[in-house]
Amino acid sequence: MERLSPILDVLAPPDDDEHGPGWGHFGPAGAGHYVKMVHNGVEYGIMQAYAEGFSLFDACEYELDNAKIAHLWMQGSVVRSWLCELAARAFEQEGNDLARLEPYVEDSGEGRWTVEDSIDKRIPTPVITTSLYERFSSRGQNAFAAKVNAALRNQFGGHAVKAADPVAQREPHAE
Amino acid sequence: MERLSPILDVLAPPDDDEHGPGWGHFGPAGAGHYVKMVHNGVEYGIMQAYAEGFSLFDACEYELDNAKIAHLWMQGSVVRSWLCELAARAFEQEGNDLARLEPYVEDSGEGRWTVEDSIDKRIPTPVITTSLYERFSSRGQNAFAAKVNAALRNQFGGHAVKAADPVAQREPHAE
Amino acid sequence: MERLSPILDVLAPPDDDEHGPGWGHFGPAGAGHYVKMVHNGVEYGIMQAYAEGFSLFDACEYELDNAKIAHLWMQGSVVRSWLCELAARAFEQEGNDLARLEPYVEDSGEGRWTVEDSIDKRIPTPVITTSLYERFSSRGQNAFAAKVNAALRNQFGGHAVKAADPVAQREPHAE
Amino acid sequence: MERLSPILDVLAPPDDDEHGPGWGHFGPAGAGHYVKMVHNGVEYGIMQAYAEGFSLFDACEYELDNAKIAHLWMQGSVVRSWLCELAARAFEQEGNDLARLEPYVEDSGEGRWTVEDSIDKRIPTPVITTSLYERFSSRGQNAFAAKVNAALRNQFGGHAVKAADPVAQREPHAE
Repeated sequence: MERLSPILDVLAPPDDDEHGPGWGHFGPAGAGHYVKMVHNGVEYGIMQAYAEGFSLFDACEYELDNAKIAHLWMQGSVVRSWLCELAARAFEQEGNDLARLEPYVEDSGEGRWTVEDSIDKRIPTPVITTSLYERFSSRGQNAFAAKVNAALRNQFGGHAVKAADPVAQREPHAE
Repeated sequence: MERLSPILDVLAPPDDDEHGPGWGHFGPAGAGHYVKMVHNGVEYGIMQAYAEGFSLFDACEYELDNAKIAHLWMQGSVVRSWLCELAARAFEQEGNDLARLEPYVEDSGEGRWTVEDSIDKRIPTPVITTSLYERFSSRGQNAFAAKVNAALRNQFGGHAVKAADPVAQREPHAE
Repeated sequence: MERLSPILDVLAPPDDDEHGPGWGHFGPAGAGHYVKMVHNGVEYGIMQAYAEGFSLFDACEYELDNAKIAHLWMQGSVVRSWLCELAARAFEQEGNDLARLEPYVEDSGEGRWTVEDSIDKRIPTPVITTSLYERFSSRGQNAFAAKVNAALRNQFGGHAVKAADPVAQREPHAE
Repeated sequence: MERLSPILDVLAPPDDDEHGPGWGHFGPAGAGHYVKMVHNGVEYGIMQAYAEGFSLFDACEYELDNAKIAHLWMQGSVVRSWLCELAARAFEQEGNDLARLEPYVEDSGEGRWTVEDSIDKRIPTPVITTSLYERFSSRGQNAFAAKVNAALRNQFGGHAVKAADPVAQREPHAE
């Protein structure tokens, strides 16, 4: 640790009067990785929280400027954060409706491991897990469950289903 | 009530030794509607529970016969239910992969009202609410939130985004 | 399989005109266990769906008879099921408000494994997972997260916190 | 608006080169309130995301210093935010295990309204809603649902229930 300190001092953010050194050592082998893994799980949750807020703005009756909101939230609001700053930048670069982007969100593992760890410990992490599942769903992984729901509604209610085949769609299966 | 009883006896399922009459009166004005509204909220949750189970079968490494599973579950399993019976029928009629169906699920209001009621009462209904939101998402209502997540990932990680415009997609925005 | 069939015929529910044999063979080693594991995950979701419905009845302004509702739901309603039948029985035996029972729910593993499997497959199972987490929370496993929330509210809003120590409670920490 | 500007300039945070003025006007009557309401919904989600992360640290096998982690996260990490800063302060003031605090979280309405609005718009807000429900649950509002789950488990599995009355607890109801 003492041998590594000079290197870490250079790589990490500088010491900070309020927050101390820009790096930390968290104990036995694995502890540091664990802190980083959970960091990413928390990150998923925070991102999804902002994402839901902006999706309400996108759907609402007011013509709101998402970048302007994100900038305003950076000034003294409870939700000010680096991710909020990035949101401001993203809306400026991509436009208010993010038209260029596909609603497709990858994940790189830490969120999955965080959820598995939480199950292992019997600690509920509903927000982190939901954020992970929202990423899965953005990739279409919720499609079969939706089909089952549609099929069940069709069975008991004769509710029309949307069929891939337009002919079939005109003649939905009814009880 | 007494005047209506003969009519209700005809309309409702017949009396049952185990479960009593096929209709019930639940008290002051509104109580019956309330019971029916919550019934539908519960229905959403049960449907989604099966839907998730079958979506695991659909994705798993075994070649499973969903109709056969639903039929087997009807015989003595804890999850036997009328909806399970309908699932068996749906898989028989639509095929094991429900190929004809769009992953698109409507809702007709009772689920929304149930959730609003639960918020009003401060009673958590996470499964019913999640089932409702899964229906919203099946209709693409989660798309903007997914775009925000993708935009944020792109901002901090330079993660490539999937762009609607293939040219843009080849040159993802990087920090 | 052929050698086992006579035994399984005796152990399992009898053949059924509608649903076929009372047991099934699902393929390679592991497939049957997999179907049973997911069965239990689905079971968690269905149980929680009913639990949320009855908790709304418990909290509502009408004086509702939960056993009567469960019996009525057994007669022709969409949510009729064996678990609904058990709910009727439970309310009859334990009383309308389940006063004797602690709000404490164990789990025996299959729900956890189902969620881990869903994460492994990137298939969202929000209802099954939520039901599992509700069980964890019923055992107090959500307590530390609630304390963090309370501490954060206290920091930014000077919102009083409920302190274990009544003296401290009278003098909440304020910014 | 022009008449109010000088006052708002004094009340709000000062202009900022990066983020512009410390206050904003968002359009027709109601728009500003709407932005503030959603802000608070987002706030619930972010708080719960941190809360889940720290509850994993609390439960994990490493002896982690939560304040140290929160301080480190303030230095260049993706999740740096004002709420993370408050978390550092809260752990410093209350101790690593927040022992003085009850796991009891109030809410003041904006979260409920945000969820109702999202249902009205058919926009899924699973993280914000989950965060709200976690607050309800912290106040014991999940208790009846947990009792129903316990009663159902007891019915089908003869699983022992934890009874308030210790005598009853020794003789759990069995099928």
